[in-house]
Amino acid sequence: MRKGIATVSISGSLDVKLEAIAAARFDSVELFDADVVSSPLGPEAIARRCADLGLDIDLFQPLRDLVGLTPDVFTDRLRFARAKFELMERLGATRALVCSAVHPASVDDPDLTAEQLGAVGAVAAEHGFTLAYEALAWGTHVNRFGQARRIVEKADLANVGVAVDTFHLLARGDGPEALAGLAGDRIAFVQIADAHGLSMDVLEWSRHHRCFPGQGVLDVEGVVGVCVEAGYRGPLSLEVFSDIVREADPRDTARDAMRSLLHLEEQLRRRWDGVDAPEASDRRRRPRVELFDPPPAPAAPTVDVVDLAVAPGDSRTLGFFTSLGFTADEGGADTSGAPDRTVLRNGEAVVVLDARSDLELRRSAAAQRPHVAAIGVSGDAESDLPARAQALHWPVVEATEGARRVRATRSPAGVEVHLDGQPLAASPLADDGWGGLDHIGFAIDTDRSDAEVSFHRTLLGLRPGPVSEFIDPAGRLRSRVLQPEAGSLRVVLNIAVRAPGVPTWTGVNQLAYACTDLLDRAEVLRGAGTPLLPVPDAYYDDLAARLDPDPALLSRLRRLGVLYDRDDAGGELFHLYTPLVAGRFYVELLERRGGYRGFGAANTPVRLASQAATPWL
Amino acid sequence: MRKGIATVSISGSLDVKLEAIAAARFDSVELFDADVVSSPLGPEAIARRCADLGLDIDLFQPLRDLVGLTPDVFTDRLRFARAKFELMERLGATRALVCSAVHPASVDDPDLTAEQLGAVGAVAAEHGFTLAYEALAWGTHVNRFGQARRIVEKADLANVGVAVDTFHLLARGDGPEALAGLAGDRIAFVQIADAHGLSMDVLEWSRHHRCFPGQGVLDVEGVVGVCVEAGYRGPLSLEVFSDIVREADPRDTARDAMRSLLHLEEQLRRRWDGVDAPEASDRRRRPRVELFDPPPAPAAPTVDVVDLAVAPGDSRTLGFFTSLGFTADEGGADTSGAPDRTVLRNGEAVVVLDARSDLELRRSAAAQRPHVAAIGVSGDAESDLPARAQALHWPVVEATEGARRVRATRSPAGVEVHLDGQPLAASPLADDGWGGLDHIGFAIDTDRSDAEVSFHRTLLGLRPGPVSEFIDPAGRLRSRVLQPEAGSLRVVLNIAVRAPGVPTWTGVNQLAYACTDLLDRAEVLRGAGTPLLPVPDAYYDDLAARLDPDPALLSRLRRLGVLYDRDDAGGELFHLYTPLVAGRFYVELLERRGGYRGFGAANTPVRLASQAATPWL
Repeated sequence: MRKGIATVSISGSLDVKLEAIAAARFDSVELFDADVVSSPLGPEAIARRCADLGLDIDLFQPLRDLVGLTPDVFTDRLRFARAKFELMERLGATRALVCSAVHPASVDDPDLTAEQLGAVGAVAAEHGFTLAYEALAWGTHVNRFGQARRIVEKADLANVGVAVDTFHLLARGDGPEALAGLAGDRIAFVQIADAHGLSMDVLEWSRHHRCFPGQGVLDVEGVVGVCVEAGYRGPLSLEVFSDIVREADPRDTARDAMRSLLHLEEQLRRRWDGVDAPEASDRRRRPRVELFDPPPAPAAPTVDVVDLAVAPGDSRTLGFFTSLGFTADEGGADTSGAPDRTVLRNGEAVVVLDARSDLELRRSAAAQRPHVAAIGVSGDAESDLPARAQALHWPVVEATEGARRVRATRSPAGVEVHLDGQPLAASPLADDGWGGLDHIGFAIDTDRSDAEVSFHRTLLGLRPGPVSEFIDPAGRLRSRVLQPEAGSLRVVLNIAVRAPGVPTWTGVNQLAYACTDLLDRAEVLRGAGTPLLPVPDAYYDDLAARLDPDPALLSRLRRLGVLYDRDDAGGELFHLYTPLVAGRFYVELLERRGGYRGFGAANTPVRLASQAATPWL
Repeated sequence: MRKGIATVSISGSLDVKLEAIAAARFDSVELFDADVVSSPLGPEAIARRCADLGLDIDLFQPLRDLVGLTPDVFTDRLRFARAKFELMERLGATRALVCSAVHPASVDDPDLTAEQLGAVGAVAAEHGFTLAYEALAWGTHVNRFGQARRIVEKADLANVGVAVDTFHLLARGDGPEALAGLAGDRIAFVQIADAHGLSMDVLEWSRHHRCFPGQGVLDVEGVVGVCVEAGYRGPLSLEVFSDIVREADPRDTARDAMRSLLHLEEQLRRRWDGVDAPEASDRRRRPRVELFDPPPAPAAPTVDVVDLAVAPGDSRTLGFFTSLGFTADEGGADTSGAPDRTVLRNGEAVVVLDARSDLELRRSAAAQRPHVAAIGVSGDAESDLPARAQALHWPVVEATEGARRVRATRSPAGVEVHLDGQPLAASPLADDGWGGLDHIGFAIDTDRSDAEVSFHRTLLGLRPGPVSEFIDPAGRLRSRVLQPEAGSLRVVLNIAVRAPGVPTWTGVNQLAYACTDLLDRAEVLRGAGTPLLPVPDAYYDDLAARLDPDPALLSRLRRLGVLYDRDDAGGELFHLYTPLVAGRFYVELLERRGGYRGFGAANTPVRLASQAATPWL
C-alpha cells in the first residue's frame, strides 16, 4: 500500500525532514502547518521540493478548533479556514485534517458541529478539497471515534470523511469494532501511531507516549486491518510525536518509520492468509491490495556464535572464561584456520575471542577491547535472513567469521549480527552441565530503545513484552524482554538512563547461560576461586522475610552467594553473576525449575547495586 | 522543625546517600528497605554509620501489602512483618510506614483492614514500635487519605497513626480539609513531596512526577501547615522520587531538598504571622514551634548589571551592541577605573564587556567567550541578599565589579549572581527609547531545571509559573517563567531537551529589553543594517489567518520582520530578535501594549526554527 508520514514525526528543519522521508522511500507526507509557517522556503518552494523528492502531499494538518464552536467564534474560524485553503492551493495539497475542538468556545452540540463541518466542507468543495475529521482523544466534547463518525455521517458530504487515527481511537479504549459497518469511502485518512503502556496510573506516567507501530502495546494492526477490509485505499500514514522522535536523527527516524509500516503490512498479510493462525484465516476478506511479502522471519531463531573482540595477547579475558570452565580448542585457533581467533567451549556454551585488528564493521563499537563485537543468528531452512534484512532496509554488508565471509547487519545498539554464519559445534571434550544461551542482554540508550525493539522484532520476529523499571545507584534501568514464539533467542534490552556525563556502553552486555544443578556448579566455581558477584547478607534476610525458603536451602544460597526467586506457581530460579568485565559485559549462570519463565526481576536492584560497588575484572 | 529525607529520594549507594544527607544538615532519614537489602554494610553497620553522621533513623519504609488482605495471605504477611521488625531492631529504628495494599489478594473491607492493622500494631507494640499507615494514591481499595484515617481511628491503638503524605493526599484531589479535626498525635509521620502539573490528560504526561516542595504545583504548604497546627511535632520529611532525582548528583539533591524545607518553613511562618497577607493572619493558630527565619526576600528585585566576559580586544561583541545603539562610556572604561572593562549604555539598558582574565568564579562557565558571566541583582533597603543566601545554603563568595569587591553566589546554571553590587546609572548621553530588562532568559539543562527554579524562588522570592513546551528543530524547548509579586525581575528558564551529543550551553542566553515605539526602533535598526533574525514570509500569512491584523500593520510587520501577538483582552506584543551571538546569547527588543503580560509563546516555534537556520554572529 501507499505509505506516508507526518512531518511532525521527524525532527529537524522542514527541508531536512523531507530529505530524510524521501531517503526512506515514503510515497507521501502529511505536511504540518507549523512546519510550513517556520520554513523560509515558502509554500511554492515547498511544493517544488516535495515534487523533486518524489513526495506527494497527501494531507495538510491540522486545522484546529474549526467546528463545534459558538457561532461567533465559528465565523472567525471559517475565515481562518479560508486563509489556510489559500495556503493549500499554493502548496498543491487537496486534503486537510480537521480535529475536534479544545477551544474555550467549544460546544457540546453534535448537530451544530455537523452543520459547521458541512459549511467548512462546502467551502473546501469549491477548492476541490477533501476534509478528514478527527476526534482528538482530549477533545473537549468530541473525543471518541464514534462521535466523529456520527458527525461526519450527519454532515453527509462526499468530500468530508472521518480520520481514523489509531492512537486517538485506541487510547480511549475503543477498538476495531468502532469501525464496524463503515464504508471505505467514508474513511478520508488513516493515521497510524502506537503507544507505550498507556495508563492513567500516575505510577506509570511516561515521557514517551507515541511510537511506531509494533514498538508499543496498541492493536494498531486490528484497526488498520478493518480500514483496509472496508475498502480504504489511501495511504497508511504515520503520525507519531514523542520526545524520543523529536530528539532523534531524522534519517534514523524515517527509516524506523518505514520498517514499521512494512512489518505492519506483513502482519496483515499473514493474518489474512492464515499463516500464523490457520484456523482464523478468512480468505474471503483478504482485500485486493498489494502487501509487503519478504522472506519470513525464522520460526525459532538461535544465537550460535558470540564473538568477542579482544586485544592481541589479552590473557585476562581468556583467564576469565577459563575460570568459568571454558576450554580452548586445540591449538587455540579455530578449525577455519584463522589466526588470532580462539574458540572457547563449555558444554553447549561457545565464545570466540577475536584479536584481529581488521574487524570491518566494528568502527563505532569503540576501539576499547574486550567487547562483544558480533553475534551469529541462525534461522531455519526456510528463512533467508540476509534477504529479509535487505527487504526491511537493514543494510547488509560482508563480514568475516574466522576465514569465512558471511553476510551481516548491525543493530541500532551497534552489535554486528551475522545472518548466515556457521554454527559452532558444542564442546566434544567435556560436558560440565553448561547449556547454551538462555538469553542475551543488550545495553541500550533510551533514545535508541524503540529502534532496537524494531530491529529484533522486524528482522527476527521476536515479540516485545512490557517494560520493567528498576532503580540503579547511578540512575534507572528499564528492561524489556523480546522472545520468539518458539526457539531460544530471548533478548533482554537493558535501557540505562543515567545522569548526563555518565558514560554508557551500548552493545551486548549480558551473556546468560542455562545450566542444570546450579548449586553444584556454584560449589565448583566457589571452590576454584572464580570471581563471582558478591551478594549482601541482608539480601538473604529479606529473602527469608519474603519467600520463607527452607532453612537448609537458604543457608546454602547464602554460603554460595546464589540469588533465588520463586513464582506464584512454585517455579524456581537459581542464578549467579560475574562482576563486569572491563565495564563491558558480564556472565550470568542460571537454572530454571518447575517452569519458571521470568528473569529474576526481584533480584535486579541487588544485582545492580553490587555491580556498581564491585571493581571490574 | 526537625527535618528528614527518605533515602529513596537520593541517588547512589546507601553510604553515598547518607553522606550527602548529613552534609546537607538533615536531622534524620527515612530508611528505604531496598537500600538496606542492597547494601553490603548490613543493618548494624548502617545504624553505626547513621549515628556517626548524626542522623537518626526516623522511619523504616515501606511495609507493603501488609493489611487489607484475604486472611490466608495476611497470615504470611504478618510473618513477613515480624521478620522486618527484627531487622528494625538491628537498625535501631522504631517507626515503620505501612502503605495500603496493591496486592491481588487485597480486599475492599475497612473493618477487616482495621482489624489486621490492629494485629500488626499489637506485634509492633511488643517491640515498642509505632506504625504510620498511608493511603497510596494507587492503592487498590484504600487510596484516599480519609479511608486511611478511618481505618486508623477504628484500629484505635496508641502506637498506630496515619501517615500524611502530601503527594498521595493532594494527587487524589483532597486538600488540607481532609485533616480537619485530626489530633496531632494521630499523625504518625508527615512525608512531603510536590509534583509537576499532575494531570490525567495524556497530552501532559510527564516523565517527572514528584519534586521538592515549591518546585511543583501542589498546595504542600497548606497540608503541612494543618499538620503542625494540629500539634504534629515529628519531622518534616521529604519523600521525593523522580527520574531527575535518580540521575542527579546526590549532594546537589540533598542540598536542594534542605533548601525546599527551609523555604517551606519560612512560608508557613510568614503565613501565620500575616506578613504576606495581613488580613489572613491568625496569630492565635501560630503553633509554638521554631521556624526558619532568614532575612526576607526582596519585594521588588531588579537586575542592574549584565556582565559579559569577552576575549581581550573582542571588537565583534562590541560591534554587535554598537549596532543595536549602545554607546561606550567615555574612554571605554568604567568610572571605577578597572582596566579592560567597557560599560555600554542604551537608554536604561546597561551591559558591561569584561575582558579580564581573572574572573574568579567563572571557571565552570567554559573558557569560551563571549558569554554572560554575571548579573547583579538588587533588592530593597530591608533585604540582605548575602545573608539570605547564606541562610539558605547558597554558597556566598567574593567577586569583583570593576575595582569593587562584591559578594556573589552562583545559580545552578552556572551564572554568577552579585548580591550587593552597585547599580550602574542609565545613559546620561542619549535616550533612544530603550528601557531596562523586561526579562532575562537562562538556558538550563533538564536535569537542573528544578534546582534553578529553587534558586530564583528561595533566594529572590520569584514565583514559578506553569511549564510551556515547544518543538525545536533539534529537540524540544520547555519554558518556565518566574516573576516576583512586584518588581521587574522576570526570569524565563529555557530548558532545552536535545539529542544526546548535541552540546548545550547553560547560562544566561536571552537579554530582553523593553522599549517604546518598537516599530520605529525597528525602522532605525533595519536602516542601519543591524543584523536581526529573519522571519519567514509564511509567518505573516499565518498571522493573517490567525489574528487578522489591520492590513497596513501586517504589511509593516512583514517589511520590518517584527513578530506580533495579541491576547484575548486585546493586549498586544511587538518584538524582534537578533541572531545568536557565538551560540551563547541573543537580544530581544519588545514592546507591550494594552497590558499584554505574556512572552509571545505563539511565536516561539518560528523564532527557534529561524535561530537554528541563521548563522551565529
